[in-house]
Amino acid sequence: MYTQRLAHVFEKLQQMGLKQMMITDPKSIFYLTGIVNEPLERLYALYICEGKTPVLFVNRLFNIPENDFENVWHTDTDKPLEQIAARIDKTAPLGIDKEWRAAFLIPLMEMVPGLKVCLASDAVDACRACKDEAEKQLMRAASVINDEVIEKAAAFIRVGMTEKEIAAFIENEYAKAGCSSVSFPTIVSFGAHAADPHHDPDDTVLEEGNCVLIDMGCCKDHYCSDMTRTYFCGQPDADFIAVHDLVRRANEAAEAIIKPGVRLCDIDAAARNLITEAGYGAEFNHRLGHFIGQTDHEKGDVSSANENNVQPGMVFSIEPGVYLKGRFGVRIEDLVLVTEDGCEILNRVDKHWKTVG
Amino acid sequence: MYTQRLAHVFEKLQQMGLKQMMITDPKSIFYLTGIVNEPLERLYALYICEGKTPVLFVNRLFNIPENDFENVWHTDTDKPLEQIAARIDKTAPLGIDKEWRAAFLIPLMEMVPGLKVCLASDAVDACRACKDEAEKQLMRAASVINDEVIEKAAAFIRVGMTEKEIAAFIENEYAKAGCSSVSFPTIVSFGAHAADPHHDPDDTVLEEGNCVLIDMGCCKDHYCSDMTRTYFCGQPDADFIAVHDLVRRANEAAEAIIKPGVRLCDIDAAARNLITEAGYGAEFNHRLGHFIGQTDHEKGDVSSANENNVQPGMVFSIEPGVYLKGRFGVRIEDLVLVTEDGCEILNRVDKHWKTVG
Repeated sequence: MYTQRLAHVFEKLQQMGLKQMMITDPKSIFYLTGIVNEPLERLYALYICEGKTPVLFVNRLFNIPENDFENVWHTDTDKPLEQIAARIDKTAPLGIDKEWRAAFLIPLMEMVPGLKVCLASDAVDACRACKDEAEKQLMRAASVINDEVIEKAAAFIRVGMTEKEIAAFIENEYAKAGCSSVSFPTIVSFGAHAADPHHDPDDTVLEEGNCVLIDMGCCKDHYCSDMTRTYFCGQPDADFIAVHDLVRRANEAAEAIIKPGVRLCDIDAAARNLITEAGYGAEFNHRLGHFIGQTDHEKGDVSSANENNVQPGMVFSIEPGVYLKGRFGVRIEDLVLVTEDGCEILNRVDKHWKTVG
Repeated sequence: MYTQRLAHVFEKLQQMGLKQMMITDPKSIFYLTGIVNEPLERLYALYICEGKTPVLFVNRLFNIPENDFENVWHTDTDKPLEQIAARIDKTAPLGIDKEWRAAFLIPLMEMVPGLKVCLASDAVDACRACKDEAEKQLMRAASVINDEVIEKAAAFIRVGMTEKEIAAFIENEYAKAGCSSVSFPTIVSFGAHAADPHHDPDDTVLEEGNCVLIDMGCCKDHYCSDMTRTYFCGQPDADFIAVHDLVRRANEAAEAIIKPGVRLCDIDAAARNLITEAGYGAEFNHRLGHFIGQTDHEKGDVSSANENNVQPGMVFSIEPGVYLKGRFGVRIEDLVLVTEDGCEILNRVDKHWKTVG
């Protein structure tokens, strides 16, 4: 599996006119080697070059399993960039991972004057964007847990609970289901808080008449889920119902047209046009979706600026929203997996509005 | 406060021969503006230039409070690097934040051919390293919680519990104490697991005869704590006792010499020499400590390679360890705050070995 993935990356590099690259995103290194490591601020890099054994630069502090690569170790007092400078082909352009920090990139450029660097993450990211069979199973499994946990959360919610309490309940259920972590901090937003797409749960208490927006995801066996549903505490008024129905229809309209060959921007438009026609264009202030896999937000999005075609194996979110400042917000989000002739919606939880509390 | 901090950064920049810088670490932006924002993969930057109003480049998705800076907004479909290229002085070197990702830095360099970039984080990091009075109070408060929670955890531990259960207990206590998060994923390691300094808690069950290493920290009001204690389940044997006493003496020897003017490498040596003389030099395979503040690991460390002098207001960890592969590990860690004539040890929990379970 790893040999195949690496060959795929080299193909993409060649198309970009490159023969060597520093891969530094730990998730990309995991994708290509199966090695799990979180280096924090320390240097950690996989150098790949056509015709050579890949080289892993790693701090002795980390327990890296035995592997088929060349391992170049350093300690906290060594100068690992000198080790890298000694290995790369200084006469050829060097592909750089988009995640590499200036802390390493700038000193390396200073150490090798004239070195041509260029952003080459797309070679790995394009591979990571199209999930193979093993990854598809992991993506499905993480979303099955997400579906189960949101149903439990909806049943758990009561008037008087705080946003934080509900978020803690969800995160505890994830832990019970064997998840290693959340894929992002759980969002629970009551009433006007839901008009901020990225609200942090606080001690606000749920009252009748509040909407309840829950955006949640877990990480299981290195792969992520991500879903949003918006509920209502008590009987919703006509405005909430109308906006909720609009957002649901936008979500469904986008999902309905997903298949290989369709442009990502056209999927964005399918949802956005409905919302704009209903007069809420300005209140849908973000792209329709993002790619997802080992992290919640991976390279690639579903936005008006992305004219790339959908390909089989891609997994991304479809999450239209309408945010009415000072009043309420609605977002409905699923993950979809692109198949040969359409898409599999990874979230099965009903999308119609329902009451909680 | 923010005006003073910014003036301080400009002073440092000037010493580096720079007049302009892109500050992109959200924690540095918070430090200089009080604005909290987590941009994830989106561009977020504070551009500062002598004699000009600082400019904040920010995605419309984020709710930034009103502020005294110039705000340049973009959406997901705009090209924010063009906005930056239009603002900077292209004839002068541009200081770059060490945290800036290649995803932004390389395209900016391509967009402005000939632009000289240099790593300039030290201008901000040197300020962040020396805590002001407001920050000292926050650092103390986070460590008070850490002290309280580890005492509760030690009393909670029983034979038959898993590492994960104990980690979950600790993290739940943090939440009850009003912490926003952990400062890093809690480490609980039984027996031979403790020989891996960065072990992830798993479902291993505690048995009599295991050591129990707990490395934990919380984040409260944006500032972090971090402490390690190593306990023993049942009656320890002479080897554990000897190693634990050695590590404790190394910790205390280092803390005893901390005061302004001492070199950080000499503090590392004070602990390391004791451990090396006892024959465990190779088993203490990491630096003695790291700086800490808004994140668990900030710029600066206590290592044999760091010849900088200690200054009042610095906060760092002192965490010697001895790791015996396949057997057990011991680490004892406190945070210390450098005062005018010595240091204040922020953790008050007793460091002698004690039994749990």
